[in-house]
Amino acid sequence: MDPTSAAFMLAENRSQPMHVGGLQLFRKPEGAARDHVAQMYRQMLDVDAIAPLFAKRPYRSVATGGQWTWTDDAQFDLEYHVRHSALPRPGRVRELLELCSRLHGTRLARERPLWEAHVIEGLRDGRIAVYTKIHHALVDGVSSMRLLRSVLSTDPDRRDMPPPWAVSPAARRAEKDRSDADHGLADLPISAFRTALGVTADAAGLPAALVKTLSRGVRNETSAVSLYAPRTIFNTKITGSRRFAAQQWPMERMRAVGKASGATINDVVLAMCSGAVRTYLDEQNALPDSPLVAMVPVGLKAKDAQSASASGGNAVGAVMVKMGTHLDDPADRLAAIHASMLAGKEALGSMTPMQILAMSAIGMAPAILTPMLRLNGIARPPFNLIISNVPGPRSTHWFNGAQLEGMYPLSIPIHGMALNITCTSYDGQMGFGLTGCRRTVPHLQRLLAHLDAELASLEKAAGVS
Amino acid sequence: MDPTSAAFMLAENRSQPMHVGGLQLFRKPEGAARDHVAQMYRQMLDVDAIAPLFAKRPYRSVATGGQWTWTDDAQFDLEYHVRHSALPRPGRVRELLELCSRLHGTRLARERPLWEAHVIEGLRDGRIAVYTKIHHALVDGVSSMRLLRSVLSTDPDRRDMPPPWAVSPAARRAEKDRSDADHGLADLPISAFRTALGVTADAAGLPAALVKTLSRGVRNETSAVSLYAPRTIFNTKITGSRRFAAQQWPMERMRAVGKASGATINDVVLAMCSGAVRTYLDEQNALPDSPLVAMVPVGLKAKDAQSASASGGNAVGAVMVKMGTHLDDPADRLAAIHASMLAGKEALGSMTPMQILAMSAIGMAPAILTPMLRLNGIARPPFNLIISNVPGPRSTHWFNGAQLEGMYPLSIPIHGMALNITCTSYDGQMGFGLTGCRRTVPHLQRLLAHLDAELASLEKAAGVS
Repeated sequence: MDPTSAAFMLAENRSQPMHVGGLQLFRKPEGAARDHVAQMYRQMLDVDAIAPLFAKRPYRSVATGGQWTWTDDAQFDLEYHVRHSALPRPGRVRELLELCSRLHGTRLARERPLWEAHVIEGLRDGRIAVYTKIHHALVDGVSSMRLLRSVLSTDPDRRDMPPPWAVSPAARRAEKDRSDADHGLADLPISAFRTALGVTADAAGLPAALVKTLSRGVRNETSAVSLYAPRTIFNTKITGSRRFAAQQWPMERMRAVGKASGATINDVVLAMCSGAVRTYLDEQNALPDSPLVAMVPVGLKAKDAQSASASGGNAVGAVMVKMGTHLDDPADRLAAIHASMLAGKEALGSMTPMQILAMSAIGMAPAILTPMLRLNGIARPPFNLIISNVPGPRSTHWFNGAQLEGMYPLSIPIHGMALNITCTSYDGQMGFGLTGCRRTVPHLQRLLAHLDAELASLEKAAGVS
Repeated sequence: MDPTSAAFMLAENRSQPMHVGGLQLFRKPEGAARDHVAQMYRQMLDVDAIAPLFAKRPYRSVATGGQWTWTDDAQFDLEYHVRHSALPRPGRVRELLELCSRLHGTRLARERPLWEAHVIEGLRDGRIAVYTKIHHALVDGVSSMRLLRSVLSTDPDRRDMPPPWAVSPAARRAEKDRSDADHGLADLPISAFRTALGVTADAAGLPAALVKTLSRGVRNETSAVSLYAPRTIFNTKITGSRRFAAQQWPMERMRAVGKASGATINDVVLAMCSGAVRTYLDEQNALPDSPLVAMVPVGLKAKDAQSASASGGNAVGAVMVKMGTHLDDPADRLAAIHASMLAGKEALGSMTPMQILAMSAIGMAPAILTPMLRLNGIARPPFNLIISNVPGPRSTHWFNGAQLEGMYPLSIPIHGMALNITCTSYDGQMGFGLTGCRRTVPHLQRLLAHLDAELASLEKAAGVS
């Protein structure tokens, strides 16, 4: 097991389960049988061989010197990992989110391969939900979403499509004839999934110089990342209880606001989060006077970062964005975010590769770095929230004739960072996934209504509603 | 933690989860609201205080010298333990049993109090199912069933009844005025639940002399327990996959067969199991020539056992019953079982208290004793099956107006004992709960049809059909 994976095994405890999740919503194919979901479930179990990523369990013993290694699960039981569930009535999205919250709040059994997939029926609108969870020792959040996507097709008529955990020899042969590079992801060695974004976030093995740079950075001693983040209720110890909320909005609406305001879609996403969090904190009399700071991972061209990934992909940096939560006006908040994001990217441009790598590592492996940097011990949090925006496919995708209507990421809250917002775009929609500690972030689901209201306010302010 | 509880913690592994379960089926009250189950679920969460049994988690550290102790769960989260689930369509009993199989096949999280309760809706007949699992370190199977029963009432009009995990001061005050001694069970200290049948099954602390007696007994060197049990597919290593099947039959039918044949109801229960297991093994070309031997726990008057329980209840002995599976005729099998049971009870009468305790301990703590006795190493199993029959309440019971229609125990398969049959009587019905390793005992659910066919055959043979 590589040091980062091992670090995630070690960092995990009851309050900080270290798995990422994905929720996908599918529309049944036309003329689907009454037992379509049961059929779909059985088909997902009907695989010839399991991809390595899904067949290995973590293992350590005296023989491994107490170190975590991977071993094939000799008692592998696919029915344990892939489960067929149903929602209580009335089967609204609310019941679905409650089930996902519960599933996301239980730890994966370490004696088995570290993943589960739940095929969920019972939504009253007839849609099918699939909740998947995979341990961070296996994949990071972005790779996890890519993995789920990798088995989908742009062809609504395609059938006999294997699930992500299948190794299908036929599919692999066909693979060579196609250009869809995402296919066959699960056949890659496990280490490949930990470097998908191009940063070898080898936190446990970070050289001392890097830790020092990073440590000074988050303590606001260096100019490039110098920021003042207030204390908020999000920056406290968390428990293992989870609440998940998710909703999607048309990207066209965000594009229109951005265009009218000279901002990017990502700025508008951040402005929605800013306004929603502001309202949320205000309701609880917990809004600080100074603006919240969000850590926002941004893509960098490999040449800027001077640190390409193993697979030649893009590198990632992190920008600390002042969220403007102290401002009354939605348009002012959007302008402040836009300015802060520009300044942050410029600062990033003036940083050394080592500094960028250090900044990025915060986002890639916060739970590992927190104890290393003794973040719990410093007076103020380096930032208040993590808000990620992961681009997804632009066109409509299908799985065995079922149309994917939305996908939402579930992430990992950690001590000092009780709320995580991850967005992913798909087919013209922006899906927001909010994952929080249920006790530290009460009534988390209210943020959805606030996000909706904030988008409407931004449209009004930009004169595009 | 007492040594027996600690032994169950240590004996537990992925293949042998050490929890017992109970499945209860309720009929909704007349005029129940459409969201009755949701209301019932919320009511189960609405408790003032948690009974000690349900609030403590196991804990060990350097400070405890590596020994398991109990500690209050500072992050107790009732919503983690009590869950609202639903069945996939079509919502037959089959889907319910599949869900229970899955729930029973996952281990309890040791970082939390060792129990879960699942309120399950979606049965197409409108009934409500409650599946409960509790670790054997907290309760044995019989205590578990008593605990579930203890909160029920014989009054269909009673409301505001607390769930088993609640400490209700009002209920406790009321307790003193009532004679229902089962009430307030959960308020007892944890150790009370491990001695409910009267045997202090302190296996981990069994004196050497006892182990020696027992060891000779199961090696067939002593006359009282001398038996020849053939090898069967049930007596092999198991995996962690579980299959549960359950059904109930009217006790009146068994009583009629017993009366016409000069046998007890328990003999008829064993004869049903014998015929069903015979047919099942025969289908798989795995029926041994010599009869299977079942270990059957039987109640003993305390004076016979010379070993009363802490609470003054009955003691338990174990009889090794030859099941007559080599006989073609159902009536012959019943007669053989009746004779073997009589002989076994007589043998039990001639045993010393130490021998009885040793015999009983096999049934109480097989998983603990197996390694101690090196049962895996001896040529033949001491018996092939464990069949328990636990008497339950005779009258109809209700929970907040919902009538209990059936209750079924889920037990613990262990290495060498892949199938467990536990029966419990309630309101004129005998509920059979069959728990097995899904891989070692394939198509376990077929045993239900075989049990049904066998009861009909017995009725025909006895001339009472």
